[in-house]
Amino acid sequence: MINIRPATEKDYPRVLELIQELATFEKEPDAVEVTVEELQKHAFSKPPLFTCFIGEYDDKIEGIALCYPRFSTWKGKSIHLEDLIVTHKMRGKGLGKALYNRVLEFAHAQNVRRVEWVVLDWNKGAIDFYKSSGATIIPGWHLVQMDGVSLAQYLEK
Amino acid sequence: MINIRPATEKDYPRVLELIQELATFEKEPDAVEVTVEELQKHAFSKPPLFTCFIGEYDDKIEGIALCYPRFSTWKGKSIHLEDLIVTHKMRGKGLGKALYNRVLEFAHAQNVRRVEWVVLDWNKGAIDFYKSSGATIIPGWHLVQMDGVSLAQYLEK
Repeated sequence: MINIRPATEKDYPRVLELIQELATFEKEPDAVEVTVEELQKHAFSKPPLFTCFIGEYDDKIEGIALCYPRFSTWKGKSIHLEDLIVTHKMRGKGLGKALYNRVLEFAHAQNVRRVEWVVLDWNKGAIDFYKSSGATIIPGWHLVQMDGVSLAQYLEK
Repeated sequence: MINIRPATEKDYPRVLELIQELATFEKEPDAVEVTVEELQKHAFSKPPLFTCFIGEYDDKIEGIALCYPRFSTWKGKSIHLEDLIVTHKMRGKGLGKALYNRVLEFAHAQNVRRVEWVVLDWNKGAIDFYKSSGATIIPGWHLVQMDGVSLAQYLEK
């Protein structure tokens, strides 16, 4: 019933629906500015900016995992898991784990010394799952972001 | 006295010295596994995995800033600042700010909606500097990492 495969161009409208569902779950319903066209452009640019895997359950797209390379000055090339999404109604059926496994296989095939991602500190279910798989929660760091408006303002000064 | 420029191949032995100095400052002196050859390989691969800017003070390399693209499913293409390093003895002379500015200009030229990085929660000087420039500290996230050994173990199960 579960099938994991790379995304094709026509999947991206549905991919964006899942991204929006996750943003709503994370209490940021208005945060999504990305468009289907941007997703398609960067998925198939040369080089692509990311790799997106599709999780199907009974031939319907019910999950995605989106990842891309990063470069750690300590560990070299790494794979960053940006989003692992399963629709609310399809949780607990193994789709999330199948997507997670696919990303880890993808990373291992590239011989990286690290796979990394972030998790909300109140998402205990996810934290427990990641720990049980052998991942480590790294305490003591803050994320920092500058948005496009602040960036322009800073550079105008 | 300050000069910022892209790194060339022969700069990477010195770049690795600065990476090692930062790891020691961050209380992880044994964490650096990357080699000069790996840095050179990924700096000049097609496509390169990162962009490294060199900060010179009186013609000596006293700082670096290393960054690369990421892809946010909310904001699209972003620039991640992986490391901003100034040697201990050259702090307070404006070299860090010059490197920071160069990365922000580089990001702005690519029209991104976000520049992002991480900071240690005890590094108050850095946090204050980032905030004063218009960046935002994003609370509530944990970093998660799986190293290569744990990755292989997980996939063997």
